Amino acid sequence: MSTTETGTARPAGRPRSEKAEKAILEATLDLIGEGSGVTELTIEAIAARAGVGKTTIYRRWSNKEDLVVDALATLKSPVPHLSGESVRGDLIVLMEAMRLDALQSDRRCVMNIAMSESDRYPHLFEKFRRIAIEPRREAMRQVLRRGVANGELQPDLDIDLAVQIVSGPMVMFTRWADPEDLTEDLPRRIVDQVLAGLGRK
Amino acid sequence: MSTTETGTARPAGRPRSEKAEKAILEATLDLIGEGSGVTELTIEAIAARAGVGKTTIYRRWSNKEDLVVDALATLKSPVPHLSGESVRGDLIVLMEAMRLDALQSDRRCVMNIAMSESDRYPHLFEKFRRIAIEPRREAMRQVLRRGVANGELQPDLDIDLAVQIVSGPMVMFTRWADPEDLTEDLPRRIVDQVLAGLGRK
Repeated sequence: MSTTETGTARPAGRPRSEKAEKAILEATLDLIGEGSGVTELTIEAIAARAGVGKTTIYRRWSNKEDLVVDALATLKSPVPHLSGESVRGDLIVLMEAMRLDALQSDRRCVMNIAMSESDRYPHLFEKFRRIAIEPRREAMRQVLRRGVANGELQPDLDIDLAVQIVSGPMVMFTRWADPEDLTEDLPRRIVDQVLAGLGRK
Repeated sequence: MSTTETGTARPAGRPRSEKAEKAILEATLDLIGEGSGVTELTIEAIAARAGVGKTTIYRRWSNKEDLVVDALATLKSPVPHLSGESVRGDLIVLMEAMRLDALQSDRRCVMNIAMSESDRYPHLFEKFRRIAIEPRREAMRQVLRRGVANGELQPDLDIDLAVQIVSGPMVMFTRWADPEDLTEDLPRRIVDQVLAGLGRK
């Protein structure tokens, strides 16, 4: 599993410590990917999997939650480039990024962790939301605001409500549907139906 | 926490065994409500909390998952009555039922369990979906099909896509929003915006 340094707050250190950090982050993701929740995840298990000592981990992360957040953040795709040609096109690009993330089981684990243990680990969830969810949401808000400004969207649109209306259906599909239901045309179908509305014109 | 016999497959037994069953289901829900996931939940803990012996539990449920499903099912509100006067009105009633469920922390636990550990407990999730989710989804499909038939909705509407477009936004709010964001007018605002669409008319 390839990880990037994206989202890891710590500045670059010496090559050897970089290598250890990468191994620790990958070990954390591997254990999560194997079905361990945050509760069952232990620094001991991560250290053993990464082939480092616990102190090597504690030197970088003061607690398990911060390590999990940094590990999860490395998995998230960056916010996709938006051409800005049309609101419809940009929304489809944003939905397609969600679809592709969902098709990767390691990224589906991100979703599961972020959603499932949020009540038990509010700090983890808040930090993950700030690092991984909020930038995507803000990108969508900007697209929607542009659509209101240029007349593609309704002038009185409630932007925050619209974000949930656009994202909600794809989240439902990524959470509950079988991977084969995440068809290539799903982002386009969702966006077109949401823009047109369900009501008879 | 009050539970009903709704959703418990087993036919009524003698009063004493009814009482024990109710105590077992309530103990299961209490432990889940206190933050225990299915993984950490044990028959021992449930028996201790319910004040019954483990054999009393195993006499009724062959495994933990079936007990959890029956316990979760007792928490779900019944599918609300739909007047059938308008698709808009019936969809608002269905969304309002989701909102009210979400405002009760014990019911939010149902959501969390059903969503969070679905990968680890596919049997539990499938049974819960069949008992608790599918009837609501089918009720919504029927409303939407009626709207297509009577011209309230677009004639070529993809019903399964439409179900996700209507439900998705409320699920997003119930999962991530603060309870105070679940305002009384939210069901109406979601339904009206989804029916009208986001696009400029």
